[in-house]
Amino acid sequence: MEPIVLVHGGAGDIPDSRVSLKITGVKKAASLGYKVLKNGGSVVEAVEEAVKSMEDDEAFNAGYGSVLNLDGDVEMDASIMLGSNLLSGGVTVVKDIAHPISLARLVMEKTPHFLLAGAGANRFAKEQGVPSVPPGSLVSKYAKEALEHFMKYGDNGTEMSGVGEVGTVGAVAIDSKGRLAAATSTGGITGKMAGRSSDTCIIGSGTYADDNVGAVSTTGHGESIARFCLAHAIIYEMRNGSSASEATAKALKEMKGRLPNTAGAITISKSGELGIDFTSRRMAWAYQVKDEMHFGIEHGQHTKEKV
Amino acid sequence: MEPIVLVHGGAGDIPDSRVSLKITGVKKAASLGYKVLKNGGSVVEAVEEAVKSMEDDEAFNAGYGSVLNLDGDVEMDASIMLGSNLLSGGVTVVKDIAHPISLARLVMEKTPHFLLAGAGANRFAKEQGVPSVPPGSLVSKYAKEALEHFMKYGDNGTEMSGVGEVGTVGAVAIDSKGRLAAATSTGGITGKMAGRSSDTCIIGSGTYADDNVGAVSTTGHGESIARFCLAHAIIYEMRNGSSASEATAKALKEMKGRLPNTAGAITISKSGELGIDFTSRRMAWAYQVKDEMHFGIEHGQHTKEKV
Repeated sequence: MEPIVLVHGGAGDIPDSRVSLKITGVKKAASLGYKVLKNGGSVVEAVEEAVKSMEDDEAFNAGYGSVLNLDGDVEMDASIMLGSNLLSGGVTVVKDIAHPISLARLVMEKTPHFLLAGAGANRFAKEQGVPSVPPGSLVSKYAKEALEHFMKYGDNGTEMSGVGEVGTVGAVAIDSKGRLAAATSTGGITGKMAGRSSDTCIIGSGTYADDNVGAVSTTGHGESIARFCLAHAIIYEMRNGSSASEATAKALKEMKGRLPNTAGAITISKSGELGIDFTSRRMAWAYQVKDEMHFGIEHGQHTKEKV
Repeated sequence: MEPIVLVHGGAGDIPDSRVSLKITGVKKAASLGYKVLKNGGSVVEAVEEAVKSMEDDEAFNAGYGSVLNLDGDVEMDASIMLGSNLLSGGVTVVKDIAHPISLARLVMEKTPHFLLAGAGANRFAKEQGVPSVPPGSLVSKYAKEALEHFMKYGDNGTEMSGVGEVGTVGAVAIDSKGRLAAATSTGGITGKMAGRSSDTCIIGSGTYADDNVGAVSTTGHGESIARFCLAHAIIYEMRNGSSASEATAKALKEMKGRLPNTAGAITISKSGELGIDFTSRRMAWAYQVKDEMHFGIEHGQHTKEKV
């Protein structure tokens, strides 16, 4: 089977001015993830590497550049899952860590637990020797402006307001032996309450991987995704016989019919089929196959270019 | 339709000495929840009332009597969900609150979010005027002994060790108009890391309710339940045509085949059918219909008595 790392850089009402930054970022992440697999790395390493590169990139709402809560702080969520044994790890409302996805992986590999929250997650990071960054250093100028706009005008508390960053990031990967993994990382939504957890840290909502079925990473309005269990719903549609593409479209459509907000998802089936879909205005995505990069951000867009 | 409130008091390796305490507690909770519906209360009020009574009861691992983490502290999780609009609320690693389930309901009703974690959850409680209890006052003698045993002998970090409390609590309810709700509350597992979140706070793992399908509350090994998305798996089995009873048994059996630990669940379908099943050694459960209390704790037990 051809190894693939498919990434997304967030679904939502992405302003025109942010489109090219996002496309550059997802292409870079897809390329880095693909290199890991081509060099014999595992699917977990591949999704971690892809997500880390977007956590470092101010164009996305994860790691550096995360949106701010009502206190003006960055609190981040991430999760990662391995499809062979359903092992997973996650962190929620973690602060002052450059790469929440790497901490999520440590939760998976070094603890008997699947999710650590708040101060406990930061304490675990310290115990594991994960360096903390100075308070405030993950705050970007763009995120500050978005919070100021939120405080002045308010909005509906969703990622769909067109204000601030909407780029939760994620990756799904399959290797030549059909092993699957998924990873997702986010700063949440601008103007969230301190302590607000998101779908992104939750297995079944933000992230899922099962070698018997497929792997999924989602993005969009977290509260709606969590209540709909979007990642697990897509997995079940595949179990019921839908292709990756059909399952992704079907679950997203049903979610939109039941709940007032939009979302997007990327999916790989156990046979390597891809599903890329979103009910939001835009979602940045990319994957590399051999020397060809595939990417898009608009509905119906599927651009290919040699790399 | 006959209104029903079905409750559980936790699945696991419940010692003989705790059996009668658990049965007394689940019968009381089922009776209180049933009275709420009979007096015209909502399904949300009914499941909240049932769970609160078990949070107050030292016989269960929720509220007072919760198990202790490695620091000797009580950190609690809870979630609640309404089936008509899929609204939900939850809290994780919250401290010094007598009724985490009531705080979860406030998250559902008073915030745009579905889950608050750690210090943020406690701050929200304060803002809402929820009284905090003195530090240490939720710690029972039994929970202390269990942590001492854990520190001395260790165990596999599961609820199945036979040491300490295993009684996560939960309730599902249907009213005469077919409206559904579910609620779950827990102290987690003895000797957990500070900050460890559980399946219990997660929609799709610990709790789910959808008026188009049914309502579910789960209990058992949290890490396995979360990775399997047990509540949502049971919902999907019902969507695929299984009865409440078949769906509960089928998902629990599949989970046991994929992951090393056991669990239990209670389910009500949209037509009022019940599912009560567990792969653990024991699970306390009860529900009242008219003047008859139904309950059990052993496999195959279904006792009825007039109330």
